[in-house]
Amino acid sequence: MAKIKGPRRPKAQTPKGFRDYFGAEVSARKAMLDKIAEVYHRYGFDALETSAVETVEALGKFLPDVDRPNEGVFAWQEDEDWLALRYDLTAPLARVAAQYRQDLPTPYRRFAMGPVWRNEKPGPGRFRQFYQCDADTVGAASVAADAEICAMLADALESVGIARGDYVIRVNNRKVLNGVMEVAGILDPEDPSKFEAERGIVLRAIDKFDRLGVDGVRALLGEGRKDESGDFTKGAGLGGAQAEQIMKFVSANDLVSFELERVAQTVSSRGGDANDLFKASWIRDPSDLALQKSLGATISVDQISTKIYNSFVLDFLSDLVSGSLVGSEGVEELEQIASLLAAQGYGPDRIIIDPSVVRGLGYYTGPVFEAELTFEITDEKGRPRQFGSVAGGGRYDDLVKRFTGQAVPATGVSIGVDRLLAALDAKGKGPAKAQGPVVVTVMDRARMADYMALVNELRQAGIRAEMYLGNPKNFGNQLKYADKRESPVAIIMGEDEAARGVVQVKDLILGAQIAADASVEEWKAQSQQVEVLRGDMVATVREILARYA
Amino acid sequence: MAKIKGPRRPKAQTPKGFRDYFGAEVSARKAMLDKIAEVYHRYGFDALETSAVETVEALGKFLPDVDRPNEGVFAWQEDEDWLALRYDLTAPLARVAAQYRQDLPTPYRRFAMGPVWRNEKPGPGRFRQFYQCDADTVGAASVAADAEICAMLADALESVGIARGDYVIRVNNRKVLNGVMEVAGILDPEDPSKFEAERGIVLRAIDKFDRLGVDGVRALLGEGRKDESGDFTKGAGLGGAQAEQIMKFVSANDLVSFELERVAQTVSSRGGDANDLFKASWIRDPSDLALQKSLGATISVDQISTKIYNSFVLDFLSDLVSGSLVGSEGVEELEQIASLLAAQGYGPDRIIIDPSVVRGLGYYTGPVFEAELTFEITDEKGRPRQFGSVAGGGRYDDLVKRFTGQAVPATGVSIGVDRLLAALDAKGKGPAKAQGPVVVTVMDRARMADYMALVNELRQAGIRAEMYLGNPKNFGNQLKYADKRESPVAIIMGEDEAARGVVQVKDLILGAQIAADASVEEWKAQSQQVEVLRGDMVATVREILARYA
Repeated sequence: MAKIKGPRRPKAQTPKGFRDYFGAEVSARKAMLDKIAEVYHRYGFDALETSAVETVEALGKFLPDVDRPNEGVFAWQEDEDWLALRYDLTAPLARVAAQYRQDLPTPYRRFAMGPVWRNEKPGPGRFRQFYQCDADTVGAASVAADAEICAMLADALESVGIARGDYVIRVNNRKVLNGVMEVAGILDPEDPSKFEAERGIVLRAIDKFDRLGVDGVRALLGEGRKDESGDFTKGAGLGGAQAEQIMKFVSANDLVSFELERVAQTVSSRGGDANDLFKASWIRDPSDLALQKSLGATISVDQISTKIYNSFVLDFLSDLVSGSLVGSEGVEELEQIASLLAAQGYGPDRIIIDPSVVRGLGYYTGPVFEAELTFEITDEKGRPRQFGSVAGGGRYDDLVKRFTGQAVPATGVSIGVDRLLAALDAKGKGPAKAQGPVVVTVMDRARMADYMALVNELRQAGIRAEMYLGNPKNFGNQLKYADKRESPVAIIMGEDEAARGVVQVKDLILGAQIAADASVEEWKAQSQQVEVLRGDMVATVREILARYA
Repeated sequence: MAKIKGPRRPKAQTPKGFRDYFGAEVSARKAMLDKIAEVYHRYGFDALETSAVETVEALGKFLPDVDRPNEGVFAWQEDEDWLALRYDLTAPLARVAAQYRQDLPTPYRRFAMGPVWRNEKPGPGRFRQFYQCDADTVGAASVAADAEICAMLADALESVGIARGDYVIRVNNRKVLNGVMEVAGILDPEDPSKFEAERGIVLRAIDKFDRLGVDGVRALLGEGRKDESGDFTKGAGLGGAQAEQIMKFVSANDLVSFELERVAQTVSSRGGDANDLFKASWIRDPSDLALQKSLGATISVDQISTKIYNSFVLDFLSDLVSGSLVGSEGVEELEQIASLLAAQGYGPDRIIIDPSVVRGLGYYTGPVFEAELTFEITDEKGRPRQFGSVAGGGRYDDLVKRFTGQAVPATGVSIGVDRLLAALDAKGKGPAKAQGPVVVTVMDRARMADYMALVNELRQAGIRAEMYLGNPKNFGNQLKYADKRESPVAIIMGEDEAARGVVQVKDLILGAQIAADASVEEWKAQSQQVEVLRGDMVATVREILARYA
């Protein structure tokens, strides 16, 4: 006879690309968000919490850094409207800035933290729901707003435990790139629509600099590039001099660093003042760089005074955009940012002007920033590598224009909370293993009320505690449970103890250590369990907890 | 000539039924969640954060208290699967408890807080995204778990600022109702499928007790009820004695309270001990209650000792379910809960056994709890009314059965965070008006770096501060901005002050008070603005802030 099947049971699974967070994972992220929020708040930023759901219309579909802007959101239809989960915290800010423009202060500084959702193919460590932690200033055209964001970002990183020297915030400016493109002859201020296709290819190419390197980008600036799979990507078709101009911009950091090293060497060998000593003599061909660099001495930028460092970078950029109005404006903005930051003591050991920041240059309209962690970690294959970027942002001056027709300047930053948590973990500064609760065991089912009174006493004294709520028959199971809960202490009170008004207080951490390491002699010498008067239980537990705090 | 229309601009609006939260609203909720989490954690509960998105299959569609269980969620299709936003925090817990059943401790105490989404018609004050704040114990069959949840709920309410006496947690038990139905002849333990339709009507009727009152429920227990619009709802068709039995259960609280008052009067007039004095002589007809009550003296339950109160209630219920096994079991569970709580000092001034808690009795399988705020507020029409329920929960023993086929006992509570915030607001204990930042004004555009240095000094001293980042041309606008930001202090440094190494520190709160109240004499006498050395700025600002803290 055939078996009669019941209805199919549902699968107990998260949807593809989503995950659950337990205990210490939740509290570690919360602690980080709290610390960042405290810094944002101190800088005068106000909290804003929008809902997860927006109309697709209000949201727009302008995911940055995505080639197919119409994809990437979770959306569904409701009556005539389409609703969707927000894919970042900037799009809802744009909607809020337009919706409440009469009521909000101008400028409006706001911070927001919470999950965002991307309908993308999940990968290892890449989830479709993740946290962002943003701060933006809406309605301030001054680059003082950008400088403030950079200083705040430095403070935020330090507040969560990234030591000074373990991070650097790099600042670049889209306007400088525009100047470079103007000088290279692919941007005509008189007719901005000309060479749009070429500029598009250039922007996409330099956005991939980290991945493709000098040769890959140079190929894309010229005829094109064939990747490992044999696919050919058509290039921008720039001539040699044009491409060199772009390449100098992209490699500017290395070029400047090399020059700094050379000068530092000269200065230290002669004992003079670098400011008087040199005029920048920039290396003309970036491909010579590796060779020349290997000849130079290593010197860290924080040995160079702010003034010298900035003068080097800004001189270099001035040269590069010479003749372009927008380019000069961009260099001047960077100069202002550097000097505003210097006035507050944020030197190049924390925030540097760095023309090699190219990520997001296609998206932002003015200054761009990127925070990078500079310490080495070991990747999944055991190789050392730099941890890399944990935050980024910049100026985007068309924030609410979609809604109101009016251009409103805005600048902001987004911290990748999950990456930052991973970084602290890699640095050994991850969440301290959470201490489990004290477990009051159940020796005698008739005394449940007494056990609850004990547990209540501990809790009212501020000590995390619980009574064993499983089946108390097998006492071994209770200790196994305490072990799973990582309990530091167990309380035991049987009939005999109850009659004598005492409890047994068992130090489970010491117990585990003894079981793992100690010889029998040591084991006997140590008291992993003490009998105390019931009235002394709280004090005794406190004493043991203090040992392991 | 017809105007050429550009593309239609998107509307800057939240979707229907969603809203934004600004500044103090965000931090007030956060502060409340933090305090509740601290209590949950102290009780040994571990944080769990699941994602907002679940498969519809895993989620199930069992919205409690909803007549049409297939509606109510935001869902969309992905490949063959349907995904949806979670509608509560219990359904994801069920999925987690099944998915990780090998790894989680047993029992598993977990708490979760976060938004949930309901695809329902929004109304005034009723949104489609709102916060829940849950704690549940999975895998503990003992009613000690239920008692623990009740004690924890009391602690949580007090931790957020609800004073003892301003709330009460009522506990009832579905099993007692089952016993009552058995005695009334509409539940046959030998054949549970019999009278299912009648019991369904009875459960729905008593669930509406708050709204329909004694007469409405009694009508639904009998032939049926015609509502104000003339619609007729068919009743359960119970006979007079059957209906009386149910009505006694529903009115139990009033009946017991009246009896308590009567006995208390007798006791106080004779100076004796209530325990010796009386045997419960329950009022046989609930309709006599109002009359008899008006004759009785008013006495609050916290004047009655725990033991007396419990013996009254439990005696009453024992009588009511006499002869039913499940009913006696239910009464015994309530007795245990009361005595476990009493052992920890949670008497009827905080947690009472109250058979009139009927909400959710159709959903839960054992004890049910409801936290009610007992103070009066003024409703939107100016009438005084009780604030009512802010949290509820109970035991539901089939949590993971859908997934695994195995019944796992569970009990838990959900706090309605938004209602609790509204309650504190109504009680005048809402969020203190957030203090705005100190505003460093911009008198001289060339000194931006100096102003940023000033603002940085304040921030590094832990003082919330910002530099004015709007167009500084009109100084009046800067003060208007400071006003909108509710800034307590403005810093002013023009060319003259800079040359002399001083700043002006302006007390804006005093300034506003003077502008509003003071006569000219007083105005002159008070110094709302002081000039101090730049090095004394931080100390001066601290002093002013301390005045208004």
